[in-house]
Amino acid sequence: MSLKVSDIGEKELVKYIISNSKEITPDDTAITKFGSTNLISTSDMLIQSRHFPENMSYFDMGFKVVTVNVSDLAAMGAEPLGFLLAIAVPKDLDLDSFKELIDGVLSACDYYSIPLIGGDTNEASEIIISGTALGLCDRPLMMDTYSIGDVIAVTGDIGHAALGFNLDVLDNVYVKKALKPLARIKEGIALRKSGATSATDITDGLASELHHIKRDLFGFMIYEELLGISDEYRQYCENLDLNYLDLVLHVGEDFELLFTIPKDRLKYLDIDYRVIGEVTDSDVVEITLENGFVESIENRGYEHYVCE
Amino acid sequence: MSLKVSDIGEKELVKYIISNSKEITPDDTAITKFGSTNLISTSDMLIQSRHFPENMSYFDMGFKVVTVNVSDLAAMGAEPLGFLLAIAVPKDLDLDSFKELIDGVLSACDYYSIPLIGGDTNEASEIIISGTALGLCDRPLMMDTYSIGDVIAVTGDIGHAALGFNLDVLDNVYVKKALKPLARIKEGIALRKSGATSATDITDGLASELHHIKRDLFGFMIYEELLGISDEYRQYCENLDLNYLDLVLHVGEDFELLFTIPKDRLKYLDIDYRVIGEVTDSDVVEITLENGFVESIENRGYEHYVCE
Repeated sequence: MSLKVSDIGEKELVKYIISNSKEITPDDTAITKFGSTNLISTSDMLIQSRHFPENMSYFDMGFKVVTVNVSDLAAMGAEPLGFLLAIAVPKDLDLDSFKELIDGVLSACDYYSIPLIGGDTNEASEIIISGTALGLCDRPLMMDTYSIGDVIAVTGDIGHAALGFNLDVLDNVYVKKALKPLARIKEGIALRKSGATSATDITDGLASELHHIKRDLFGFMIYEELLGISDEYRQYCENLDLNYLDLVLHVGEDFELLFTIPKDRLKYLDIDYRVIGEVTDSDVVEITLENGFVESIENRGYEHYVCE
Repeated sequence: MSLKVSDIGEKELVKYIISNSKEITPDDTAITKFGSTNLISTSDMLIQSRHFPENMSYFDMGFKVVTVNVSDLAAMGAEPLGFLLAIAVPKDLDLDSFKELIDGVLSACDYYSIPLIGGDTNEASEIIISGTALGLCDRPLMMDTYSIGDVIAVTGDIGHAALGFNLDVLDNVYVKKALKPLARIKEGIALRKSGATSATDITDGLASELHHIKRDLFGFMIYEELLGISDEYRQYCENLDLNYLDLVLHVGEDFELLFTIPKDRLKYLDIDYRVIGEVTDSDVVEITLENGFVESIENRGYEHYVCE
């Protein structure tokens, strides 16, 4: 029997493409030298049945496709330049819903100060939105250029979206983070300017990103007590019979930035952040639990919101 | 009953988006001032059931998504800079077919000298490929900046793809044009340099493009005898009970460039081309038939390959 694409998984498909193209930047986002600066470009496609929870509004769908793309610019510390939208919708979609979706896109473009400069419309059996974000950056922050001793930090709360996806209520901080995450574009620029050594955005979960950026001979130590997990968060998880650390480490969709920075540069960083660990020479990704035990962090992430 | 998107059509959807975004270039392709030059960017999405004939190979599908995007660069006379690919495939797609598709993309990138610089992979119920082509151009050719008296010309044979879609054989010039059209990137650059006054690519048919680029008070006169319709072409159409002029005017998918140029600049144009008419002050789009009669050309094009 012949192999199917599902037999090897998305990461291997990407590897096949990258291994056959010499020009692809070994990061999540393309960098093209241009005069004294760099053009940063990234494309991400969202598909209704895979990426949008059922309770998500059309407005939030449109907003999110901008966020996921702009988040890749943010991770490099890039300044937004322009956004392109290629969208396909079912022909029986209400015109009002279509307009709401486009209003979400435009509202996000406005929020991130990235103009919508072009695109394409199409018909498909479900909503498919592909965005391309373009940005400029003279010295892009790469994802794995840290040094031993750098602290590891995040730009905000992680695990909130993960919990939000499991809640039926509409109006709390977790659900809001799940339905309308925000890309950290200003924070990315601040990180680059203040001397951060690397950055990436957390889409597939902290664990997955740490393994993704890990280089040979380098390791990461994360401290549970620094992750900012509130009593309320734990209580929600207990009520839902969910493991709170699992949600914080292995789900993602928060679009916070995970970054490294020398400790003595932290004082130049004029944004909210939370130090959660440090870069080590252990060659493993591990966590010190609140009870003092050290465990390794599995390389396991949520590829997408919707389980299959 | 509420209005559906199908009630107003793709062009009206695009109008809604454009009317709500001040930053969209009033052309088919985005132009962003970039130092002393311009960044040209364009996104086009192709969907298997709508854009790919059944007899199209995976290789040709991959090739075509690059062609349709690069063709928009060609129409501006831009130099290719980079290509981004966002692709979704069914999970039961053969791995070999996936690789063939990617090889088609890479082969086209090689052919057009446009590096594949990034992208995204996904899963969907059918093959969906969204491309973004980036280019550079100091003085982009717009689509409607012609003057009265300019000649109207095309870079190659038109109507060939239209006939090819109707033929069952695999190995002739028409079917090849239908399954593997080529974008006219070198020709676009030559047009810009030689003083062409406007250009656009023919995707939805000559008639549709002429109406698309028509400004108030300007008109176009096309001459049937200049369209290069061969006896063989007419014979094929007669055998298939198709109206040859209908195929040439109203189908498209050839990806040739339609351009205007002052007659005295033609001598600087070092590419193959065919003059087919002239810009007039008639305010109508019309054709002089071979029998001497003049008819108006309807604004009717094929939105996509697949009829619904």
